[in-house]
Amino acid sequence: MAARIDADLFSRAKAADAADPLGGYRAAFDLPVDTIYLDGNSLGPLTHAARDGVSATVDTEWGRGLVGSWNTADWIGLAYRVGAMIAPLIGAAPEDVICCDSTSVNLYKVLGAALAKRPGRHRIVAERDNFPTDLYIADQAARRAGPAHHVQWLAPGQMIEAALDEDVAVLMLTHVDYRTGAMHDMAGLTRAAHAAGALVVWDLAHSAGAIDLDVAGCNVDFAIGCGYKYLNGGPGAPAFIYAAPVHQADIEQPLTGWFAHAAPFDFSPGFESRAGIGAFLTGTPGILGMRCLEAALSIWRDVELSDIRDKSLALGALFVEAVATSDAAPMLALASPREPSRRGSQVSFHHPAAHGVMQALIADGVIGDMRAPDILRFGFAPLYTRYIDVVRAADRLAAIVVDGRFESAAAADGGAVT
Amino acid sequence: MAARIDADLFSRAKAADAADPLGGYRAAFDLPVDTIYLDGNSLGPLTHAARDGVSATVDTEWGRGLVGSWNTADWIGLAYRVGAMIAPLIGAAPEDVICCDSTSVNLYKVLGAALAKRPGRHRIVAERDNFPTDLYIADQAARRAGPAHHVQWLAPGQMIEAALDEDVAVLMLTHVDYRTGAMHDMAGLTRAAHAAGALVVWDLAHSAGAIDLDVAGCNVDFAIGCGYKYLNGGPGAPAFIYAAPVHQADIEQPLTGWFAHAAPFDFSPGFESRAGIGAFLTGTPGILGMRCLEAALSIWRDVELSDIRDKSLALGALFVEAVATSDAAPMLALASPREPSRRGSQVSFHHPAAHGVMQALIADGVIGDMRAPDILRFGFAPLYTRYIDVVRAADRLAAIVVDGRFESAAAADGGAVT
Repeated sequence: MAARIDADLFSRAKAADAADPLGGYRAAFDLPVDTIYLDGNSLGPLTHAARDGVSATVDTEWGRGLVGSWNTADWIGLAYRVGAMIAPLIGAAPEDVICCDSTSVNLYKVLGAALAKRPGRHRIVAERDNFPTDLYIADQAARRAGPAHHVQWLAPGQMIEAALDEDVAVLMLTHVDYRTGAMHDMAGLTRAAHAAGALVVWDLAHSAGAIDLDVAGCNVDFAIGCGYKYLNGGPGAPAFIYAAPVHQADIEQPLTGWFAHAAPFDFSPGFESRAGIGAFLTGTPGILGMRCLEAALSIWRDVELSDIRDKSLALGALFVEAVATSDAAPMLALASPREPSRRGSQVSFHHPAAHGVMQALIADGVIGDMRAPDILRFGFAPLYTRYIDVVRAADRLAAIVVDGRFESAAAADGGAVT
Repeated sequence: MAARIDADLFSRAKAADAADPLGGYRAAFDLPVDTIYLDGNSLGPLTHAARDGVSATVDTEWGRGLVGSWNTADWIGLAYRVGAMIAPLIGAAPEDVICCDSTSVNLYKVLGAALAKRPGRHRIVAERDNFPTDLYIADQAARRAGPAHHVQWLAPGQMIEAALDEDVAVLMLTHVDYRTGAMHDMAGLTRAAHAAGALVVWDLAHSAGAIDLDVAGCNVDFAIGCGYKYLNGGPGAPAFIYAAPVHQADIEQPLTGWFAHAAPFDFSPGFESRAGIGAFLTGTPGILGMRCLEAALSIWRDVELSDIRDKSLALGALFVEAVATSDAAPMLALASPREPSRRGSQVSFHHPAAHGVMQALIADGVIGDMRAPDILRFGFAPLYTRYIDVVRAADRLAAIVVDGRFESAAAADGGAVT
């Protein structure tokens, strides 16, 4: 097998790793050997801190402290505590973020609250290309808000600004597209929504932990996001909600469980909402998942978001360059924006046999994923992805594509497509 | 300190433990030494199986398998698998129960689905004395179902049957009262609801794992329940939903996230519901919490529910007898039904200084809990509670009450009131 990638790229990658200000963070992760993991945008890997946090929760807090740990281990305050740890990663104040439930459930709550703040307006504007759970939930939120409420679905390429008129209550957007990695202009689109009198809800699933987000600086109204991708909170980790301080005074959200009550342990029959971001809580929080996320977040304490973004851009650019200068270039069409600043922390390519190619690549020790019908998706997590990883990944990808090794692999079923 | 409890009760308890067909299960639990834990109705304790299950999930499935574990460890099927393990504990077929989210979130989904099945009817009938989260959620579910929908709150003692007329869509009841342990007649009230043309939703939070439930035999329409009480699934463990087969054909629930889609990994913009109980799923499931619950449930494989109920009744009766025949009897008024068959698996007493008494009791190694204003609450979990435990607990309770040791303890704050 001939070399598919210029040897110079390997040297440059090694030099970049040696100079990487985030290089030390990789040791915080427990990564399988001989695996290049470029699917942290689907499920972030295990950290030693997360393992230790879960053990302490199970053995000590639950096992020894039993029900008393609601107080002694402050499980009661956990949703706030984890929210406050996520806050700096999205450019929010600690008291404006809370951790709870799943992104789907949280989106329903936030859309309900946002619609309630725009009475007399009946439309949610959203993109049909969005991650499907957002579509389904938005439909339900509109339908349950009133008979005239509905969602306007924008087709790919349709101008978002042009849809914003005086009937729009909420503009709901996902910041980074899960297929292509294309990133929206958060500041500009939020301004456009506000200019039309609408509120904006951002889904940060593919942004938090990978982009130098600034929700407060962008005047974002509400945001939700995911704990199990770049935050490495573990499979199905709880999600989070951001609400701008100006909106926290009178939150009317639809899932007012007892944890949303101002005094849950009074067990009072009448509902009175907590003040602040805690109004978005619902039922008893899942402590195990939340403590795991909390522990995983502990490694972020001294991380500079600008370093994250810089490295993410550099990793993506190196990967694109490596593929573009390889023998496989004619067979792999870039599905992501060519301009790095318009990408999140992933790069995607079209290939007609994407499923087979990805299976072969996984067999070769490079884990990315595919999205139907033809997208190969590679995520870069600046805390553990090395420059050498992306060059090696490009090399193996190019070899598989050029050698046509994917056809036989395509016949084999299985693999991770989540 | 004089003996407060007849010595004969200790002998009888020891004999009962020696003959207990469930006696062997206690070894499955990792209980703190020198602690009598009678608060499993708040948070069930750790099992060795749960610890091992969590470790395997973290270290092997997540740590080594990474995103591939959605398939290789069948995380995708976990919600169904855990539901099927809960099913026999509530008298349901395996395919009629699913595990997901919190009880609050699940109640919202189930109420939404039930209301949709009774168009033209606008009322939910429920008890004001219910656990508050059910009240708050029912209010929201009614409000979001349509402008004429509302909840009728029955005062304590008000006849449920008398409220059931042709406008009632749903009778929502909690099977076992969280304060008093009073248990409703599931078969009779379900029949009454059906006779009025209404559907019934049962909250099994304080029943599942402690009562010989038979939701299918009682023709229950929908039920929800909790994973972290008698099922020992861990703090904030995911909850479950039961739906009768007859209702699974056209479920219209409000939280249709991508996991409720018939083909979630097609990422299709149009929503098409899963067939069957999976229609109640919402977002990406919290794997850690669900795997912990799954492991905790593994110890139930050979448990006979009739043994559970028999022992639960016997434990409760012994506790009541021990208190009633103690020197403290005049100071502790039974708050639970006197007739054992009308109780769930807990016994409560009124005491004017309940908070202080419980703090003193916890300091003496007996963990129960209190509910405002004056209820001392003791839960019996037949898999690990021994007869000797309840006699010792009654002995220490009587000593505290008779000696008046609770007044100084009342000044100290803290303790578990969850």
